Amino acid sequence: MKRTELFTKTSKTTPAGEVAKNAQLLIRAGYIHKEMAGVYAYLPLGLRVLENIKQIVREEMNAIGGQELSMTVLQPRDVWEKTNRFDDAVVDNWFKTKLKDGTELGVGLTHEEPVVDALIPYVSSYKDLPLSVYQIGPKFRNELRAKSGILRGREFVMKDMYSFARNQAEHDELYEKTAAAYTKIYDRLGIGAETYRTAADGGYFTERFSDEYQTLSDVGEDTIYVDKAKKLAINKEIYTDENLVKLGLNRQDLVEEKSVEVGNIFPLESKYSDALDLYYTDERGQRQSIIMGCYGIGVSRIMGAIVEKFADEQGIVWPVAIAPFKICLINVGTDENVVKFTINLYKKLQEKGVEVLWDDRVDVRPGEKFADADLMGIPHRVVVSAKTLAQNSVEYKARTSEETLILTIDELLKKIACI
Amino acid sequence: MKRTELFTKTSKTTPAGEVAKNAQLLIRAGYIHKEMAGVYAYLPLGLRVLENIKQIVREEMNAIGGQELSMTVLQPRDVWEKTNRFDDAVVDNWFKTKLKDGTELGVGLTHEEPVVDALIPYVSSYKDLPLSVYQIGPKFRNELRAKSGILRGREFVMKDMYSFARNQAEHDELYEKTAAAYTKIYDRLGIGAETYRTAADGGYFTERFSDEYQTLSDVGEDTIYVDKAKKLAINKEIYTDENLVKLGLNRQDLVEEKSVEVGNIFPLESKYSDALDLYYTDERGQRQSIIMGCYGIGVSRIMGAIVEKFADEQGIVWPVAIAPFKICLINVGTDENVVKFTINLYKKLQEKGVEVLWDDRVDVRPGEKFADADLMGIPHRVVVSAKTLAQNSVEYKARTSEETLILTIDELLKKIACI
Repeated sequence: MKRTELFTKTSKTTPAGEVAKNAQLLIRAGYIHKEMAGVYAYLPLGLRVLENIKQIVREEMNAIGGQELSMTVLQPRDVWEKTNRFDDAVVDNWFKTKLKDGTELGVGLTHEEPVVDALIPYVSSYKDLPLSVYQIGPKFRNELRAKSGILRGREFVMKDMYSFARNQAEHDELYEKTAAAYTKIYDRLGIGAETYRTAADGGYFTERFSDEYQTLSDVGEDTIYVDKAKKLAINKEIYTDENLVKLGLNRQDLVEEKSVEVGNIFPLESKYSDALDLYYTDERGQRQSIIMGCYGIGVSRIMGAIVEKFADEQGIVWPVAIAPFKICLINVGTDENVVKFTINLYKKLQEKGVEVLWDDRVDVRPGEKFADADLMGIPHRVVVSAKTLAQNSVEYKARTSEETLILTIDELLKKIACI
Repeated sequence: MKRTELFTKTSKTTPAGEVAKNAQLLIRAGYIHKEMAGVYAYLPLGLRVLENIKQIVREEMNAIGGQELSMTVLQPRDVWEKTNRFDDAVVDNWFKTKLKDGTELGVGLTHEEPVVDALIPYVSSYKDLPLSVYQIGPKFRNELRAKSGILRGREFVMKDMYSFARNQAEHDELYEKTAAAYTKIYDRLGIGAETYRTAADGGYFTERFSDEYQTLSDVGEDTIYVDKAKKLAINKEIYTDENLVKLGLNRQDLVEEKSVEVGNIFPLESKYSDALDLYYTDERGQRQSIIMGCYGIGVSRIMGAIVEKFADEQGIVWPVAIAPFKICLINVGTDENVVKFTINLYKKLQEKGVEVLWDDRVDVRPGEKFADADLMGIPHRVVVSAKTLAQNSVEYKARTSEETLILTIDELLKKIACI
């Protein structure tokens, strides 16, 4: 894409009323627009990052047999009353709305109940199980305060998967398969090295632990104790000797860290399936409960967490896999040969399927273009100038390095393919 | 995909309480799940169709320079008060909700105001224009009644684009460029032949016409007068001699038809930009109004309209471009060689990038598989049996034809590539 075809601009001014670094930088770089506290629109650059994260999550959910669907924002109260979760006294962060006839509706804050309800026509026999369904879409939580940018929004994008198994052993298998997929997702997103599967409270209806995925971050709201060798952690909330024994962890191997939750997986037992009357008939004709799990990943939250985790003095630093563009291509000056060389390189990169942003603005100094590329967090910067042209080369710099290299086009292509 | 990996099933029973053919068939074939009147979840097959439609729309909007973004569902009242559209007495189909502190919010029913507001940091000079932005996402309309399935929902998926021009001539150019893109979209969706650009009322703040895109359909709520030679129409609402003259249409060339609106484009003059204080400074330093257009396509509505338009006694008939799968592959019997041949063909089709649903169920009769493929509306049916195997061939049938053909694999691949 040419920069002149992108309507957003960067800003040097920290936006008023934003205390969170992620929102400050994402607004300054033109990724998001604040509608109100905790509610942000995604501008073209922001949407590209969001879609890149979604696609990685989608591929890994599909790889373990997850079937994608899309539930609704508007929620009828009847399914929620079966689990007693419609009452504001029980669930205190609903947004509610009303039909013309006064009927109260919920605005989707999670989707266990409607997903179970939607399966009723399709699940009745042992032959129909196991199965997993997931969606990637908006969620709404009526938070009292919202000051964390896209880290904790009132409206946000989430992937939620729900698994349905015939018995505990089958559930455990689905659960661990999903846990393995989560590890792959964080690796692909570029935060795998510092993201820990973390034992946490399982909720009031199970004695099992749930698993949070916590990524180390100075702005984290959570405190966890990490066993770096075992790549496991335990949340401070359940940090007791008894639980350490259950988990096979030792106090002396653990380091206290601040972290941000970037996913969680929960055993749900048969709480929701029983309440909504979803059972199956086994091989012997007996009615049996269905064991569920649920598996969340905050897609927009991860985008915010990654900004917080990697940003430096110059701005955002995106991992390559989710960057809106892999390369920012900059021509210095408007010398005819420089421009011609740049256009050819731009086309060549596009043909190779490399997502490249060509900063083709003519009234902007090179230094300003460099600063913009850094603020926007584009992983690779490629500069064409009269000087590089004399060597039939380009100047290359990685966002995370101070070193500049003079590379031929072939060397550049090899370098980019390897990163 | 293997049929045994899809959790949905088909049903012979017309769902209770559904009067619209589109909802009846889409529920029976396992495409959608009804949450409440006018609110439907998209199950895996339905989501595939929806995504296919979205992708065609997206490609054509990108091709004319549209920049994709994603606005929010939750809407703060202040921007809407600037155009006096927050008041329920003015706009009577809002869903409203509230923050914890009692602040009233809207639930996005359209996005002119927030889009204009989001552009304020980015548009100030003549150099920043023209531009077009669009999104594809959920919309919410609090309809009193909702009996038309996904043709007219309370929650539905829409593409909405907004254009911003420096003057009327530039606006007209953007408007006609978008109109041309709309024609391409309906052609690609398979409804181009019977979809007419239809002059309609422009609304209360412009004397211009708006343009509706109307596709002929017996269940249409609109009446239009069509000039088939000119590929133009006029809505009954503005069918006057004066307007016919303005449009260059003659009564004797027009045929009355029932139709469904599958898109609309509106000249907005500078109503929203002026109200929200979005102006630009021209080359001479003068402040100027910005001329806007808006361009809607009801993505889920089109899905419903296509079901209504093409369905027959056997079920849904999808145009190839949006079908969830292009081919339904069926093996008759479980003879080892038949199954082996089927698996090889399944793999070969997948390698060629053909989306194929292999009905691999072993406990289901061939007749039932054929009926399912028809109900689901899969465009091509390919059957492998001991009989076809003896000829090293398959039996091919198009969804819209009674004729069956015996084809070699090469002949089959050629046939599918051409359709």
